[in-house]
Amino acid sequence: MKKLFICFLLFSATIFPQTIDETHYDLADDIIRLALTEQTGYNWLVELCKIPPGLGGSKEYMQNVNWAVNKFKEIGCDSVWFQPVIVPNWDKGEIQSAKIVESENYEGKQLYVSALYPSIGTGDTSIIAEVIEIKSYEELKEKKDLVKGKIVFFNRPFNNSLVNTFDGYGGAVDQRVNGAVETAKYGGIGTIVRSVTSKYDNNPHVGMMRYNDTIPKVPSVAIGLIDADFLSNALKEEPNLKIELKLSCQILPDIESYNVIGEIYGNEKKDEIIVVGGHLDAWDNSQAAHDDRAPCIQTMEVLNIFKKLNIKPKRTIRCVLFTNEETGIQGARYYGEKALQEKKNHYAAIESDRGAFTPRGFNVQTDSLTLIKLQDWLPILNKALIDWIKPGGAGGDVAQIKNTKALFGYVPDCQRYMDLHHSANDKFEEVHPREMELGAAAITILTLLLSECEL
Amino acid sequence: MKKLFICFLLFSATIFPQTIDETHYDLADDIIRLALTEQTGYNWLVELCKIPPGLGGSKEYMQNVNWAVNKFKEIGCDSVWFQPVIVPNWDKGEIQSAKIVESENYEGKQLYVSALYPSIGTGDTSIIAEVIEIKSYEELKEKKDLVKGKIVFFNRPFNNSLVNTFDGYGGAVDQRVNGAVETAKYGGIGTIVRSVTSKYDNNPHVGMMRYNDTIPKVPSVAIGLIDADFLSNALKEEPNLKIELKLSCQILPDIESYNVIGEIYGNEKKDEIIVVGGHLDAWDNSQAAHDDRAPCIQTMEVLNIFKKLNIKPKRTIRCVLFTNEETGIQGARYYGEKALQEKKNHYAAIESDRGAFTPRGFNVQTDSLTLIKLQDWLPILNKALIDWIKPGGAGGDVAQIKNTKALFGYVPDCQRYMDLHHSANDKFEEVHPREMELGAAAITILTLLLSECEL
Repeated sequence: MKKLFICFLLFSATIFPQTIDETHYDLADDIIRLALTEQTGYNWLVELCKIPPGLGGSKEYMQNVNWAVNKFKEIGCDSVWFQPVIVPNWDKGEIQSAKIVESENYEGKQLYVSALYPSIGTGDTSIIAEVIEIKSYEELKEKKDLVKGKIVFFNRPFNNSLVNTFDGYGGAVDQRVNGAVETAKYGGIGTIVRSVTSKYDNNPHVGMMRYNDTIPKVPSVAIGLIDADFLSNALKEEPNLKIELKLSCQILPDIESYNVIGEIYGNEKKDEIIVVGGHLDAWDNSQAAHDDRAPCIQTMEVLNIFKKLNIKPKRTIRCVLFTNEETGIQGARYYGEKALQEKKNHYAAIESDRGAFTPRGFNVQTDSLTLIKLQDWLPILNKALIDWIKPGGAGGDVAQIKNTKALFGYVPDCQRYMDLHHSANDKFEEVHPREMELGAAAITILTLLLSECEL
Repeated sequence: MKKLFICFLLFSATIFPQTIDETHYDLADDIIRLALTEQTGYNWLVELCKIPPGLGGSKEYMQNVNWAVNKFKEIGCDSVWFQPVIVPNWDKGEIQSAKIVESENYEGKQLYVSALYPSIGTGDTSIIAEVIEIKSYEELKEKKDLVKGKIVFFNRPFNNSLVNTFDGYGGAVDQRVNGAVETAKYGGIGTIVRSVTSKYDNNPHVGMMRYNDTIPKVPSVAIGLIDADFLSNALKEEPNLKIELKLSCQILPDIESYNVIGEIYGNEKKDEIIVVGGHLDAWDNSQAAHDDRAPCIQTMEVLNIFKKLNIKPKRTIRCVLFTNEETGIQGARYYGEKALQEKKNHYAAIESDRGAFTPRGFNVQTDSLTLIKLQDWLPILNKALIDWIKPGGAGGDVAQIKNTKALFGYVPDCQRYMDLHHSANDKFEEVHPREMELGAAAITILTLLLSECEL
């Protein structure tokens, strides 16, 4: 009986369920036309890239908050508000130096490094120690007796043979995240981590790592690929060379930060909320154009396009710009908990946090029947170059929103993303206006369908 | 009965036809891994971009021919040969100048123009004439009495609201192709054509136009977008300003050029040929990286990957680098005619001439039943990011090959292509190694299936 029922649903989902009609197709065309011709989001990106990016607790972050609030007001949102959240705080400091010392051939050679978040600093002094190169935690365990008093140099490369660059990232980022704790376990006193990137240059790619309250904290930095290879070769020649590591970063007391929210009320089901959003916090070593400013703006553009085309959504469309995605996801966690406490009905959510390259698809977290139904939406989404809707992670922020019908992650092309992720390469010039705007259009069309149709 | 038969085929195509087996899936993985890790094609592009590009009849073209021949030999092809073809010839000359004269405000202002192929020059003198701005041939017809003795300025913009940039191109390129003939019909003495591009800068995008033996030839140039807008505004202010056009280009007698061919013999069906290829001729105002050097190299890489992985194809795999695609397609026409005359059995052909961005799909020209069958190949092609196989133009070169089972056009993402097409923007730096290599892998996998399976 159950099987029969599922068969019926499968069949009906494929053949009948025309909640989408010609009006939606026409609107999709209007949405794409507006996005590509006016390029409003791209023009906003020009503005935003003139403001310095910042992590959740920073002064710079507040400039981003102010910009976003003003933009939501310009759009003509029905409601614009902050959501205060307590977030961790950290000062990168002025000094981030790794220098080869006690070396015959490389004395004084500076390596290009950048502190990982939330690395402790070296105080008023520096660490001077021998270096041991390690490719895996298994190797670290094998060599544990050699680690004491040394700096561990995690040098496993990004696997460039994988088609999805997020898989390449996933296969190497553990060194950055857990390297310090694993190092300290065996008495190591610092870590240098090969940047997790598909691009061969010398820019360090930063990011978050984790300390553990039961294990001593050791200073940790990312190193550019050219210098990582240099160091690796130098160590083959002179295994006893030392590195002097000097970092003025420090962990500060927690501080208040803000999620920024703009919304357009639904005119039939105001209490059913569709969230679109990205994270407004960013690493400060670039313009953070792809991570996550352009994607944030794509979700702000949803509201703007609805307004410009005079589309009155049935459900409430809420754009949430989360704080503190890069350094702990406290922004989204707080948003999710609050929504649950207040019994806010979140119908669905869409996150944009994979860069602003050409659209490819949507990841979705939902039940299997809804997944089948969503395939009927493909022809209309395909107008904006969405080729698939597949099960997959929606994103760290929207994952904090509970009890939705579906969570979506916008998936643009990923081939160039890990070249620039968390590094000085993440420049405005790397964003292409048409690619960014097609993404905004794709997200807007999906939002429209979520607002108009039943999942 | 016929209906029943078609139903049977439809059904069987979808359910049974597993000519593809696990070996092919494993080989596809090997192909992708090799392409992404060794990046051989990208390294070849580095080499090729150090050689100047050239049109079919040029000295520079011969340097490209020599490079390709050596590369085919390096690959270890079973056979490497030239195919001599007579092609038109043209000298762009040193002087390409358009200057505003007889103007109150803009006297002496130089506009950035480049001669269209195969424009006549202005001889030892220059043309000085008033300018009439025109957006369409309908408008030209309406204003035909105003055209005599003037330079016609075709200024219809590229339509940026279209998702496929080839559609934007198609909607404006007629001005470039037929503008000179239409101008001369009404007594106009020259044309200036707004560059057909999605990128707002001042680089002229050149290309081919056509003369007609019964209508006088008039000099024709492309103009950069910034200068096109400048001229348009200047004309609103001063409709009687004049332009002095000076071009030293000239049409030369036809000359011999060459298609370059490398092949690996099939070990079961040597007489059945699968062509992969692009065009080796190129405009000389850039490194011609995306049009069509990287795509050409992708098709050369097919042979290299077969060799490196020790894949013995059942059918013969022939890489043809055509001459003279940009200036008349005589290279491919000659290849096609010769193949027909000599009754060479061409099983299928794949062209790569849409840039070397991330893979999206394959256009195919084939019968409807083969089209259905090809959908079964999608899961394996999808490993290299091919999301679809759809009916569509394969490309100007392979279209000259007759009696194949199917003609394929490789379709990468097109959002950035018309920014650089035929202009100084088509630089090496615009090619991304992973995107290029995934394209090479996609074409190689399709070639493998065409070699192993029955269509």
